[in-house]
Amino acid sequence: MMDMTKPAPAHLAPSELAYVPFVSVHNMMRLVNAMGAETFMAELAAYIEADFKRWPEFDKSPRVASHVPGGVIELMPTADAELYGFKYVNGHPKNTKTGHQTVTAFGVLSEVSNGYPVLLTEMTLLTALRTAATSALVAKYLAPKGAEVMAMIGNGAQCEFQALGFRALTGITRLRLYDIDPKATEKARRNLEGQGFQITACKSGQEAVEGAQVITTCTADKQYATILTDNMVGAGQHINAIGGDCPGKTELHRDILSRAEIFVEYPEQTRIEGEIQQLAKDHPVTELWQVMRGEAPGRIDDKQLTLFDSVGFAIEDFSALRFLRDKVAGTDYAEPLDMLADPDDPRDLFGMVTRARG
Amino acid sequence: MMDMTKPAPAHLAPSELAYVPFVSVHNMMRLVNAMGAETFMAELAAYIEADFKRWPEFDKSPRVASHVPGGVIELMPTADAELYGFKYVNGHPKNTKTGHQTVTAFGVLSEVSNGYPVLLTEMTLLTALRTAATSALVAKYLAPKGAEVMAMIGNGAQCEFQALGFRALTGITRLRLYDIDPKATEKARRNLEGQGFQITACKSGQEAVEGAQVITTCTADKQYATILTDNMVGAGQHINAIGGDCPGKTELHRDILSRAEIFVEYPEQTRIEGEIQQLAKDHPVTELWQVMRGEAPGRIDDKQLTLFDSVGFAIEDFSALRFLRDKVAGTDYAEPLDMLADPDDPRDLFGMVTRARG
Repeated sequence: MMDMTKPAPAHLAPSELAYVPFVSVHNMMRLVNAMGAETFMAELAAYIEADFKRWPEFDKSPRVASHVPGGVIELMPTADAELYGFKYVNGHPKNTKTGHQTVTAFGVLSEVSNGYPVLLTEMTLLTALRTAATSALVAKYLAPKGAEVMAMIGNGAQCEFQALGFRALTGITRLRLYDIDPKATEKARRNLEGQGFQITACKSGQEAVEGAQVITTCTADKQYATILTDNMVGAGQHINAIGGDCPGKTELHRDILSRAEIFVEYPEQTRIEGEIQQLAKDHPVTELWQVMRGEAPGRIDDKQLTLFDSVGFAIEDFSALRFLRDKVAGTDYAEPLDMLADPDDPRDLFGMVTRARG
Repeated sequence: MMDMTKPAPAHLAPSELAYVPFVSVHNMMRLVNAMGAETFMAELAAYIEADFKRWPEFDKSPRVASHVPGGVIELMPTADAELYGFKYVNGHPKNTKTGHQTVTAFGVLSEVSNGYPVLLTEMTLLTALRTAATSALVAKYLAPKGAEVMAMIGNGAQCEFQALGFRALTGITRLRLYDIDPKATEKARRNLEGQGFQITACKSGQEAVEGAQVITTCTADKQYATILTDNMVGAGQHINAIGGDCPGKTELHRDILSRAEIFVEYPEQTRIEGEIQQLAKDHPVTELWQVMRGEAPGRIDDKQLTLFDSVGFAIEDFSALRFLRDKVAGTDYAEPLDMLADPDDPRDLFGMVTRARG
């Protein structure tokens, strides 16, 4: 580890404008533990819901993806009239082999009026939390009434967040876990034990979906896979499909898609990255923001098979950044980072440097 | 100013993988002052030149610009086979009215193989340095031999960096300064005094260009302007046009463009943002990387009027990030930032959070 920098002498200390509040991983964990993950996700979901309900106000575009050897690095920007946010996120499926995270992320929120960043934060944890909060929020609109049982196929890094998010927002209390690697299931069970769930570890996907009103698929292989086949899914279920989120990576058999009512975040992106990349470009889908605004139907009867084809959209990160900024303002969860040059005279950048010689 | 965060207890301290080296504004100033701005820019220019010479190896795309009320916020990514870099930069012409910088920037360099960031740095200063280093590098190829006199029209934040960069790389020793605001000229003169330049403050652009072999235009108005008219420019000069860098913002009269030999960084971007947005889409231009590789002619005689239509391209920022990473490695110019979640088991992100409760 490197030495910490020497602080600036007081008379040369940067002005207030130079500092960007920074939320480290350590402080994100402190905040989650202080609030409790369920409360954190319930509050975060309220921000996401509020932003979905004003969807047309956002400047939207598909993420900017750089496909590099071994994975992808993406920048996901969006803005409303007051704030601009973006997330940097990588996806490298083979990273776990070297002890690295498959996905790491950080993000920035800025003032539109002057372009100055107002928050820099780790987003590996925050992305896990916003993904689960979004899934649970969507299920609030789509899952059958009184759903208590969720099958979770894929018990990796996202699993526990999904379980707690669903309990906080929809009342799920029974979990049926399955992963191709029993150690992943064991890890999830251990983490969720003693938190009031009734947990069943299953030996197959088929076993996991038995009696489940909600099915969450969250596997990580970067390839076309068939985690759910058509015979495994029945009427009246809600599928929360998280793992298929880039071209060539899907989890559901095509036949399921053909008979499900499909709900998406941003069709332009989902048709490229989601489960529906397997379907015709004009296959009908419903946009979730319209459901939340009451402008399109969500679940209309108990027999429907609903599918949230989740890929993750920039507005959810924007909501998360906005939530976090409000939450950490004036607290010690944020530390000031000397990231912006702020000369006394904006035209005198050079003079600021030479005067720093002291 | 907020309180600094409480550090993590030792047994819960993040691993090496969690840290991203961060170069603050304070440390960037320390480094520039320790090296001297001229040495800094000369070394940086060598990185830029090396990257221009391997131009086809880069993944290139025009920057991702979000046009927001009052300005623009841009993300500029690029990558080679080993490293990925991007810069966040805003441009808000009216910011100076509220004591903010027109342009602020920061950037990140990452490993392509695993997507992990390896450097986060302020880039307001670094952008000023790379812009001047690029201008001076290009002038090394295009300015008339033995050029000693540079006219500088526009004496804002970029002015002194240009002057020192040109001296370091091309031997410019005499400066003729003009700005619509005499206070800007006074500021530049004061900052450059005692550094061995012969400086003349001029009362007009016309006066400034007299006897100059190189003309640098660097004004900031976001509009079509005519800083140089056709009669002000003669044979055998080199124009370094910095200020026109977005749609609707130009500095040179069209007639100058018609008779100049025009050199650009990345035509796809320059045709949108540069001086040549005033010309037909197929007006011939020469790409600088080809000049540097010896595959296209630069200046071919003493009578030519050459123009560098500079808009700034992502590869220059990439070179600057690469240079800085090498320069600060193992020094205290970089401080470790706890930005990446790094659980012992990559699939156990949730367990990392709960264990942090202690």
